Amino acid sequence: MSRITGMKTIDVRFPTSKHLDGSDAMNPDPDYSAAYLILSTDDPNDFAGHGFVFTIGRGNDVQAAAIEALASFVLDREVEPMLANMGQTWRELVHDSQLRWLGPEKGVMHMAIGAVINALWDLKAKRAGLPLWELLASMSPEEIVELIDFRYLSDALTPQNALEILRSAEDGKAKRREQLLAQGYPAYTTTPGWLGYSDEKLSRLAAEAVEQGFKQIKLKVGANLDDDIRRMRTARAVVGPDIKIAIDANQRWDVDQAVAWVKKLEEFDIAWVEEPTSPDDVLAHAAIAKAISPIPVATGEHCQNRVLFKQFLQADGLQVLQLDASRVAGVNENVAILLLAAKFGVRVCPHAGGVGLCEAVQHLSMFDFVAVSGDREERFIEFVDHLHEHFVEPINVHSGMYWPPQLPGAGYEILPETLVDYEFSSGKIWQPEVVEA
Amino acid sequence: MSRITGMKTIDVRFPTSKHLDGSDAMNPDPDYSAAYLILSTDDPNDFAGHGFVFTIGRGNDVQAAAIEALASFVLDREVEPMLANMGQTWRELVHDSQLRWLGPEKGVMHMAIGAVINALWDLKAKRAGLPLWELLASMSPEEIVELIDFRYLSDALTPQNALEILRSAEDGKAKRREQLLAQGYPAYTTTPGWLGYSDEKLSRLAAEAVEQGFKQIKLKVGANLDDDIRRMRTARAVVGPDIKIAIDANQRWDVDQAVAWVKKLEEFDIAWVEEPTSPDDVLAHAAIAKAISPIPVATGEHCQNRVLFKQFLQADGLQVLQLDASRVAGVNENVAILLLAAKFGVRVCPHAGGVGLCEAVQHLSMFDFVAVSGDREERFIEFVDHLHEHFVEPINVHSGMYWPPQLPGAGYEILPETLVDYEFSSGKIWQPEVVEA
Repeated sequence: MSRITGMKTIDVRFPTSKHLDGSDAMNPDPDYSAAYLILSTDDPNDFAGHGFVFTIGRGNDVQAAAIEALASFVLDREVEPMLANMGQTWRELVHDSQLRWLGPEKGVMHMAIGAVINALWDLKAKRAGLPLWELLASMSPEEIVELIDFRYLSDALTPQNALEILRSAEDGKAKRREQLLAQGYPAYTTTPGWLGYSDEKLSRLAAEAVEQGFKQIKLKVGANLDDDIRRMRTARAVVGPDIKIAIDANQRWDVDQAVAWVKKLEEFDIAWVEEPTSPDDVLAHAAIAKAISPIPVATGEHCQNRVLFKQFLQADGLQVLQLDASRVAGVNENVAILLLAAKFGVRVCPHAGGVGLCEAVQHLSMFDFVAVSGDREERFIEFVDHLHEHFVEPINVHSGMYWPPQLPGAGYEILPETLVDYEFSSGKIWQPEVVEA
Repeated sequence: MSRITGMKTIDVRFPTSKHLDGSDAMNPDPDYSAAYLILSTDDPNDFAGHGFVFTIGRGNDVQAAAIEALASFVLDREVEPMLANMGQTWRELVHDSQLRWLGPEKGVMHMAIGAVINALWDLKAKRAGLPLWELLASMSPEEIVELIDFRYLSDALTPQNALEILRSAEDGKAKRREQLLAQGYPAYTTTPGWLGYSDEKLSRLAAEAVEQGFKQIKLKVGANLDDDIRRMRTARAVVGPDIKIAIDANQRWDVDQAVAWVKKLEEFDIAWVEEPTSPDDVLAHAAIAKAISPIPVATGEHCQNRVLFKQFLQADGLQVLQLDASRVAGVNENVAILLLAAKFGVRVCPHAGGVGLCEAVQHLSMFDFVAVSGDREERFIEFVDHLHEHFVEPINVHSGMYWPPQLPGAGYEILPETLVDYEFSSGKIWQPEVVEA
């Protein structure tokens, strides 16, 4: 038996706002950040478990404080029972009544629980000598169902439903694993489409995306309609008719405005409309989806928990489900969300980008393909070409595909020198002479 | 002009778990707490603005850290323009894109903004020499509409709708103010019904509630059906047929379970069923409400923002709207919620109890009666007889009514000696020899 004896949180921030990378209609100047967590044990030969919550700057310290507040649930605990019963571990954290009051099950406290859960999964995968997607795919349907808290889900997904989905995916699992290793998992790229980029930069990057083999790109929209029409026309002219173009309004509109705006862009053939309005607004998304059908509505990166995803599926408020690796309470809750999507027959195209979200979320899509939905058709993992060099195992994206990670772990581990250099505000990158240069 | 030069946050906790006050099916051992904020200015003759977020213990430090993270929005700012343009002040805080990522508009960060907004309202009311309810009621319809952010509301409530509601309430405003001062505002009491209390204590407290003039009491339910049946029978026998009894499941059930459980209790005549399931689940509440009709469903104390309230109203997921003084982003957002309720013709019966929620929320109901809905019929403010002695102006509840507060301010101000004695964990009440006694 070993015990968790180390719990280190680090406020890591990257000064991305300096170059308008990641700018959109609601987020003009993000500094991509991670409230980062390292769990270590009293066994000197053991691995460390890494996890984080992605934020965009201010408030990353609050997020780190929330992770630290979970110390009493983790420190001095025996590791093996926690890792062997990840469903129980999740419930202990999420059901703590005092902490639950701060959400419940949403926002800073819920994401903090996600960081702890994900760090434990990272440790579990490293101990198993497997990348997370392989570890999850190796679990039995019964073991996977045990990970999930079905409270508040039973009107849409019961344990029996989940078992049936997983058992039916047992068929062909080994073959799909081989396909994944040989062919990869489709990616789409957001790199060309940030709102702060000039038309020239958009054109150049869109052309490069096609050359690189991507079958879908995404443009940020929603700040100015005339600009959006011009940028869509520019992009469509560059990529031609066969490449999909999705648009992303980053929550900018109300219902009527969303419908009117999309109607002005539909001539350019829209692959999906992402985050048209408040991410909390199931009924508004359903109304928009109905009005702009057959153009699909996509949302999820700010979807607070499985209960909201359930409602989006029940109300047909989304046709593309964009789960996020660090928004909900970790791998367990995302497995529940994958099963909900499978139950409703809705495709999952995860949100990624930021810092580390690509590295983390690819494991979930690959697990889903091998062991849950069994499907890769019209499914893409978002790809943004930012900050991958800071990871122990950066994503491997080429030929328009994500290629399965090979190292044991869950993909969250940032290089130790980055954790020092980018720590806010003591790291060298944040010293006045550097950051103001 | 004066500037905000002081921003003090205090982690205040009351060891309420020692006596099982406040115990329910989801919260067995709350320590009522306030992440407390005092804003002060550079004018030595000025008032201080007080605000807080109510929590139930663990995590109150995280909540306080989130309030502190807002310092850059408040410190060194000129006070007068902030107070004169509270709508703009609200939008500056809530629309900050980096902080918004941590929600958006929900959980720890959103409630922290609420504490700042409410402290500013407290300061504004003190400077005006009026209790908050009077200050709000003295504002013109146009001034009130300016407080509200209509983003994401326009499919249910436009500025024009809000103006019409407020203008039509101008008629009879002076008379309702007199009625309020002469007759008070109805209260109901939760004091008898905590889950940790014995049947004997329930009987005694229920009888006292009737003697004290309350027309409605509330029982916590949801842990054990047989216990609930026995406790409802006991309570009904004590209070007789004319006193209303509401039940509160504190989010314990899924849809089918809620319906089945309520059916077993309906013979006792239920005034409303509160928080039957996840507070995020609009569609589940709507399904439950339909199945148990005409028994009303009540929810709102954990409702994260105006966007969720809007959906509950659109979907008929609640028939009793229970706003909370510290869950959303302060007075501005609660004014929006009162207007949404008025638009849909739904009664508002605020959540209170905890620490300071009664003192704070009474201002909103009284403002609503005087200047928004104009209605007190079947409306009650929750009353729980806990911790009022710690406030500069404790609520005045007698004869089953809340009596309007008279002192200038918004009601959040805790006595200075309490802030010292109950500060966690340095205060004298938290020293080992006291807390373990």
